[in-house]
Amino acid sequence: MLQTPVIVLNVKTYIEAVGDQAVRFAQMMEQVFDETGVHMAIAVQATDITACSKAVHIPVFAEHIDPIKSGSHTGWTLPDAVKAAGAVGTLINHSEHRLLLSDIDTCVARAKEIALDQIVCTNNISTSKAAAIFKPHFIAVEPPELIGGDISVTTADPYIVSGTVEAVKKVNRDVKVLCGAGVKIGKDVRKALELGAEGVLLASGVVKAKDKLEVMRDLASGC
Amino acid sequence: MLQTPVIVLNVKTYIEAVGDQAVRFAQMMEQVFDETGVHMAIAVQATDITACSKAVHIPVFAEHIDPIKSGSHTGWTLPDAVKAAGAVGTLINHSEHRLLLSDIDTCVARAKEIALDQIVCTNNISTSKAAAIFKPHFIAVEPPELIGGDISVTTADPYIVSGTVEAVKKVNRDVKVLCGAGVKIGKDVRKALELGAEGVLLASGVVKAKDKLEVMRDLASGC
Amino acid sequence: MLQTPVIVLNVKTYIEAVGDQAVRFAQMMEQVFDETGVHMAIAVQATDITACSKAVHIPVFAEHIDPIKSGSHTGWTLPDAVKAAGAVGTLINHSEHRLLLSDIDTCVARAKEIALDQIVCTNNISTSKAAAIFKPHFIAVEPPELIGGDISVTTADPYIVSGTVEAVKKVNRDVKVLCGAGVKIGKDVRKALELGAEGVLLASGVVKAKDKLEVMRDLASGC
Amino acid sequence: MLQTPVIVLNVKTYIEAVGDQAVRFAQMMEQVFDETGVHMAIAVQATDITACSKAVHIPVFAEHIDPIKSGSHTGWTLPDAVKAAGAVGTLINHSEHRLLLSDIDTCVARAKEIALDQIVCTNNISTSKAAAIFKPHFIAVEPPELIGGDISVTTADPYIVSGTVEAVKKVNRDVKVLCGAGVKIGKDVRKALELGAEGVLLASGVVKAKDKLEVMRDLASGC
Repeated sequence: MLQTPVIVLNVKTYIEAVGDQAVRFAQMMEQVFDETGVHMAIAVQATDITACSKAVHIPVFAEHIDPIKSGSHTGWTLPDAVKAAGAVGTLINHSEHRLLLSDIDTCVARAKEIALDQIVCTNNISTSKAAAIFKPHFIAVEPPELIGGDISVTTADPYIVSGTVEAVKKVNRDVKVLCGAGVKIGKDVRKALELGAEGVLLASGVVKAKDKLEVMRDLASGC
Repeated sequence: MLQTPVIVLNVKTYIEAVGDQAVRFAQMMEQVFDETGVHMAIAVQATDITACSKAVHIPVFAEHIDPIKSGSHTGWTLPDAVKAAGAVGTLINHSEHRLLLSDIDTCVARAKEIALDQIVCTNNISTSKAAAIFKPHFIAVEPPELIGGDISVTTADPYIVSGTVEAVKKVNRDVKVLCGAGVKIGKDVRKALELGAEGVLLASGVVKAKDKLEVMRDLASGC
Repeated sequence: MLQTPVIVLNVKTYIEAVGDQAVRFAQMMEQVFDETGVHMAIAVQATDITACSKAVHIPVFAEHIDPIKSGSHTGWTLPDAVKAAGAVGTLINHSEHRLLLSDIDTCVARAKEIALDQIVCTNNISTSKAAAIFKPHFIAVEPPELIGGDISVTTADPYIVSGTVEAVKKVNRDVKVLCGAGVKIGKDVRKALELGAEGVLLASGVVKAKDKLEVMRDLASGC
Repeated sequence: MLQTPVIVLNVKTYIEAVGDQAVRFAQMMEQVFDETGVHMAIAVQATDITACSKAVHIPVFAEHIDPIKSGSHTGWTLPDAVKAAGAVGTLINHSEHRLLLSDIDTCVARAKEIALDQIVCTNNISTSKAAAIFKPHFIAVEPPELIGGDISVTTADPYIVSGTVEAVKKVNRDVKVLCGAGVKIGKDVRKALELGAEGVLLASGVVKAKDKLEVMRDLASGC
């Protein structure tokens, strides 16, 4: 399982992080982990899982799995396929890829069956509590209106982080909380940890940065 | 573009065709192509495109693309990413992954922009005609009730094949027609070509076969 | 709020329960309530809420609401519209109309804002617990594989009923549990109550019955 | 079938047009029709079809139908139910309620079976042509980026209107074209007709107007 505190980079479907460029992002994350000892993980497109997991020793995640088993599901994402490609975990229910309640249940269960780590994304305290019922490894709370924006959730709405931590721990003490949305600098990471989160989930703050390595190092400094 | 007549294998999300096994299927298709000269293509899961396209020289397709551009679309399938992974084409609107009308339009246009071949799947004559308006390279007509079954569309409903060919050609002479559903043996392929199709799209008939190479050779014999 | 024990009839989109026929079902339910004192409620199509709620004094429910507010949402179901039409409550997340986790949260919250009773449907114990986090009035657990079948959930899988009751009560004592799937006769209702449910949700057992009034009376006899 | 030129008002899920207010909008449309002879139709929420169709003699439309027949489809919109409630037609595939290609085919076919007029909404010339293959009574082309805005499609992109008319007529001369998006005043309607459209589809321009009757009269003056 992911060690914490952890910085999880989701490269989404940014063209800046396709193919060799996805591998380059993974290698930079690994370099910063090697330099600082701060835990790093990267979620990449399904097409890039194999190359990334071969290239680096930090954890590589899928961005999504579908609630399916082997069968007639053309073009959907089989959990076993991302595992076979080298992923050690997966995001589930990301803000840009929401799932039915019953499918979150199925996805977490399927991921557990095949030993994929689970980060279930949620939008507020009540959905975080509900998702915690399924006992995923992590809940990543991200207010949708702040995703991709310039103000970190830890500044714009610190209570959603501390409130989620408190609420989730009441449901199950073993479920860890990440936070995301607008996280860009080391200070945001430090604040997240102070609020009880055990890491952050971020995307554009790194992917769109000019000096990506610099930004990763700054983020790591927050731990 | 795919040369015709062509046999297109869609391995769906069958566990028998994940990772190294996907590559194995691609290699068998290639072997039969090398032996017979009959054109073969394979559509594989996103996770397996890179390995398959490196391993073989027959065309490798994605099973699906989403109607998106670079950006915030966590876990969806970016057309540029399947292209970068080595796919030369993609299925669009498969029976198990239907799309909105407006998204089929967008997917075909995006695929053209980046030079991915397009096979748009449809369920009957009228949707085939409608899809032909977008001028994809291929329309693959597959009656959903026959998919995965034991009776070939060419036997169960030959008119849907000849009727689709006639209707599609009226819309645009350059759009080629494939047919699928229940196709399993060389005789089915031969009948498909007699009915005016320029190839077949099939899945379980090969993936679930005991002697897969034997089945592929038999299919090729129909051309 | 619905008084319990209660029998809730969902007429779905059966042609036998459209327009005047929906009103006829509501009137029969009301007649059995008047005869027996057993609480009855009916969920009807959006088109039939006004007529049913005018015709009877038993509670009329919507079959669904969408997680929306006044605005540009052509053809979706505005909670305020079903309320204005006379509904006193609504099903949410029915097996045939599943919702995203975040949308269940929004639908329950919106229904509370405008004082619509909420029956959130679920498929198993873990999703029932998760849904209970949102504190709806009712959770209706229905194993999808038994819906529309001939064997009552109370016979086929009694533990899912008692287990849901126990699990939901641990999350919030105020949330009541209904059960459904295959419920057809008074004995099924009695068993449901013995297992801790406070009512049943059923559809085809009544809608498709030859003598509907007889079936309703038999169901009532189980309370 | 709707007589043309026609002004079709879609009240969406605006709270200003729920229940009695929906009826009020229908009555104002009728008043302007009675005064001017310009054909008017109104699409209302499913909950309001019965009351509107009883209150007025102008055509009342549903905003949406689902591609279903009588059966187990809780909370979806059965075409037969909107017909029974008094609708004479329906929007299909509105920009805010897009459908799969195969479902547009099914919805148009189901509407024809039960004699509901069909207005299929589209977003550009190519999807308009594709939808015309199904031979609905009307195609209503509305560029999504202009919907709800202040600039009429007839000003912002007149070619999309004339181009759609030309393209649709090539597919089937009997299919009529409406246009929408940003249409607010009589001059916009006149321009739409000059461009070859046989009417307009509009929403916020009327629903959000201060003096709704005045706006309707002005729109009628464009015919």
